[in-house]
This record gives sequence, C-alpha cells and structure tokens, in this order.
Amino acid sequence: MNNIIANNATPVVSVPARQPLAVSAPLRCTCLALSGSLDAQALADSAARLRQRGHTVGVPTAANAQWRYFAGTDEARLAALTEAIESDADVILFARGGYGLSRILHRIDWSAVADSGKIFCGYSDVTAFSLAALAQANYVTYAGPVLSGMLAEGDDAEANEFAYAHWLAALSDPHHDYGGFANDISQPAQSIEGTLWGTNLALVSHLVGTPYLPRIDDGILVLEDIAESPYRVERMLWQLKLAGILDRQRAIVLGQFTDCQPGPALRYPYAMSEVLETLRGMVRCPVLTGFPFGHIARKVTLPMGAHAELRIDGEHYHLRLLGA
Amino acid sequence: MNNIIANNATPVVSVPARQPLAVSAPLRCTCLALSGSLDAQALADSAARLRQRGHTVGVPTAANAQWRYFAGTDEARLAALTEAIESDADVILFARGGYGLSRILHRIDWSAVADSGKIFCGYSDVTAFSLAALAQANYVTYAGPVLSGMLAEGDDAEANEFAYAHWLAALSDPHHDYGGFANDISQPAQSIEGTLWGTNLALVSHLVGTPYLPRIDDGILVLEDIAESPYRVERMLWQLKLAGILDRQRAIVLGQFTDCQPGPALRYPYAMSEVLETLRGMVRCPVLTGFPFGHIARKVTLPMGAHAELRIDGEHYHLRLLGA
Repeated sequence: MNNIIANNATPVVSVPARQPLAVSAPLRCTCLALSGSLDAQALADSAARLRQRGHTVGVPTAANAQWRYFAGTDEARLAALTEAIESDADVILFARGGYGLSRILHRIDWSAVADSGKIFCGYSDVTAFSLAALAQANYVTYAGPVLSGMLAEGDDAEANEFAYAHWLAALSDPHHDYGGFANDISQPAQSIEGTLWGTNLALVSHLVGTPYLPRIDDGILVLEDIAESPYRVERMLWQLKLAGILDRQRAIVLGQFTDCQPGPALRYPYAMSEVLETLRGMVRCPVLTGFPFGHIARKVTLPMGAHAELRIDGEHYHLRLLGA
Repeated sequence: MNNIIANNATPVVSVPARQPLAVSAPLRCTCLALSGSLDAQALADSAARLRQRGHTVGVPTAANAQWRYFAGTDEARLAALTEAIESDADVILFARGGYGLSRILHRIDWSAVADSGKIFCGYSDVTAFSLAALAQANYVTYAGPVLSGMLAEGDDAEANEFAYAHWLAALSDPHHDYGGFANDISQPAQSIEGTLWGTNLALVSHLVGTPYLPRIDDGILVLEDIAESPYRVERMLWQLKLAGILDRQRAIVLGQFTDCQPGPALRYPYAMSEVLETLRGMVRCPVLTGFPFGHIARKVTLPMGAHAELRIDGEHYHLRLLGA
C-alpha cells in the first residue's frame, strides 16, 4: 500500500509563489487561444474595444486557427504559446475557454512560462493553465476575463466597468483591495491569511491526482462553475474532500454557479442549496458565498498563488492582496 | 516537490485480489440501495421477476427509504449496508445507481465488506463501491446489472436473457468465457493477461487522487458512460492519462457510451469518433470497442479485480476469466 510514483505526485507549492512584475496602463497585450476556436470578427471586435481604452492588443493569426473544435492543432496551439512568450507583450490574455488545455498540459514548457515574467490571464478552461503553472513552476497567473466578449456592448455597463477596473487594478497593484462582499450566513469575526487559488471547479477536480494540481496547504480556495448539475458539483467537491484537498484549506469562497439550477436537462433532482449544506458539513473552515467570479461579466481578477487576507465579520467579508 | 501524504496515496492492489466464493443457482439475493431513491413498486416488480427464475430476493425496508434525492440519509444507507452484510444472502444486488456513494465511501468499513465473503453486484454509481473495495480491501465485486429494471418486460428479450445468463455464469464460474466480440479496427494477433477493472468512466476519473482508486499495474481497463458530452469523455480520459493510469494498462476495452452523441444539449461540438482517435493516440496498448457493457440491457457481468485473458485476432477479440 501507499507506494508512490514520483511522476504522479502532487507538487507542493512553497509560499510565496513567483509573481510577474506589476504593470500599469496602458498595457501591452497579446491574445492567446489554447482551447476552443473563435469567431474571428468577434475576437477582433473585443480587441478593438480594449484598444479604445488605450491599450495595445495583438491578435496573432494563430488565434483564429481551427482544427476539430479547437483553435488549431495541439502543435499549432503550443507554437502560439511560444510566440506569445516571445512577443513584446506584458500581458497574455487568453482568447476564450471551452476545452483544450487538458490535451497539451504535459507538453508545455512551464519553466519558459515562468521565465517569461509575463502576466497570463483567463478563466474557465484556462484554470488548467493556471493550476499547472503553479504546480510545475510555482508561477502566479491571473484568473480573470478572457479577451472574447470583454467590454461587450449590450452587456451590463456597470458589470463591464467593474470587471475592467478590477482587471487593471489586480494586474497593477500587488496590494489590491477587492472590497467587501455579502455572505448568505453570518460567521464569527476572524481574519484569515493564505494562498489564493482555485477557480473553475470542474478543472480543479479534473486535475486531482495529476502533476498539474498544486498542493496548497494554506488555501483560500475560490470556486465557480457553469452548466453542471448540482449533484455533479457536489460529486466534484467530494473528490476534493476524499483527496484530502478541502481539509487543507483555510477558507472556501464560492463564486457563481451559473446554469447549475435543477431543470429538465439535469439527470437528478438536486439543488445547489443542498450542495452548499453538504460542503459546509464537509469542512471546518468558513465557506463563503456571493463572490463576484465565474461565468458572468461582473467578475474580479485574482492572482492565483498570491498571498491574500480574508476578513470575515458576520455576514460580510473583505478580500485584499498582501503583496509578494 | 513530490512530497506525499500517505493518506492520499493510491493504494496498490497486489494480484490476485480476494474473490468471493462462486455460487450456483438458485441464488440467495438481497437488495441494497446506497445511491438514488427508488420507486417501491418498480423495485418490487424487479424482485418478483428474479424470484420467478427460482432465486430468493430480499427487498429490505431500507431500500425504499428517501432523503433528499437519496435512498435514505447517509447513516441509513450505511446501516442498510451493514444489514445486507449480516443477512444470510450470498449475493448483494445493488438496487440502482445514480449518485450517492461518493458521500459515504470514507465511512464504509471495507474490511467488513471483504470479510463478508459475499458477492456485490451493480454498475454506474456502484463503480465507486467496486473501486473502493479493491483499493481498500483488495476485494473483488461485480460490475453487472442492478436489481431495478432487471429482466424488465417490454425490453428486448434477447438482451435480457444475455445479461441474465452472463450474470449467473460470472457469479458461478471463476473461469467464465464471455465469448468473442467485434472491434471497429483490426489489431495484430496477441494474447493479453491482466486484471479486469474499471467500468463507469465518470466514477473512475472521480476517484483519481483519492484512496478509493486502486492502482492496477497490469490492467484490462473496461470503460463505459452515459449522458456525457464527448469533450467531457475525452477530458476524463486525459485525467487518467495525466495521472499515469492509462500508461499502466495492458488493454482498454470500451463498452457503450450511451447518449454521448453531439446534440443541442452538448456545449461543444465534438464527436466520440474524435475521442476514440485521441485515446488511441494517448496509449500504446490496444483500445478495443464494441464490448457489451454500459447503460444498456445487453451487458455482461464482470468481476472487478479478477485475472482475465483477452485474445485479440484482427477485428475480433475474446475475453475469459482465468480463475482465482
């Protein structure tokens, strides 16, 4: 029993992880598509909106490649990553999520990612990139907007400006203060310091047992998801519990679980309220809700692997970064 | 890097695993519901059909309990397991799958399961039970029919008799010969001996990184699933690949992937043919298709953890058990 192949071991991340240097506006960005393929016009429109804010935004030809469902073959997407690393951009903004990073994680040169010193930003499927960068190279990347749809017209303007302001602030200020948020229940007053990590739950659970999930022993674990039946959300949380991961967290912060309501498309009748009750029964640490992150326009940008402080007081909580 | 907590290590299964004694008809069965709740009348009807074949089939009151979506609270379901173990039945037939075993795996006394010497049989969510029994107690259970819907009228009679005959044979004959099946492509002639294991892919990937997934170094890995988008099927296979599991298999045998076709309910356009191509690119061992197992009536019963032989010759393959 308990024999271990080093290759399958969970890498331990020593705090502090290495963070890219803070940047200030105007930003020099390039776009990188490592997952699903994109509509070229929609991507160009997103880049144009960001340029209107004064930033430089490159959209390499590779971002509009297509093979099967993906933005190019595995080889082409790996080459696009190298091209982005070698570009003069400070910020590498993922084009979109979807699915695709799982196919190439083991072929990425994570030292080159870390040595680039660049800021990588995205969410959803990009979670796999962020977790692997932390696990393999102890390098901080950002959970935040993807280029596609950023500042989209027709969307809620307040939500867009909220996301844009937090994106700029998180990339430029290692002590960014996210402000306060409202939890669904009251918790005893306390201050928790730890390592900010997590994001898309499906991708976090997907990487359990692989060398691409960092081992965080003092985690402030942020989780969100979309289009998952509640029973599946709970089952994914059980994987984290049974693998010992939840017991190593100091706090669990839930973003939005979009389209995770029971409905005709869901196989079993189960509610997110039941999942939340289950999660709170699994762990001793605080489980907070209502955090602005997920598959929604109104979301913050979070350095994955950075040191942060969570202050809880009754039904309110407050998050800020503690710098490198 | 690579520090390990023993508690989260993947247990190594030494071959041969302990198998329950073979039984012969008429069987003394009891029904056990550890996952979703059931319709009492439908379950009673299933038991009656099995009794008509001469078997004894107990349906304890506990099998019809309900709490949330489940067949009773976690405590009630654990008590039902103890009751089944202490019963005079030789065969414990799971009532149905669904979801629920993930919640109680860490609370089950796996030594008591193994010491019972009884035959446990079921599939889908029951995969979690079978994998955990092998990982925690090196004990063989059976991937096969659940009681609910067994021999159901109106279903294909040939499929029902096929499943019933293989169920009886697998439970009574440690050298059961499953006969030959047709693969979609031709493979060089070869004979492969190894440990039969796996079954529902979602549950196998769900347990990666937990102490409830056995480590099988000479596996004949059988996989099936239902209602998963092809991109999710591929992503689950990537978890097994990245965790080092696929590279330890001697053969991968695919059962049915029911309702896994692309359709309006699926988020990304992707086909099972693409998944199969990806899987064959991931591994060096043979990947066989067309095996009669999954969420279909016409399925065999497989001792999970038993020693088996797979003979491949061109487009055909043949499976038989090699005994304890």
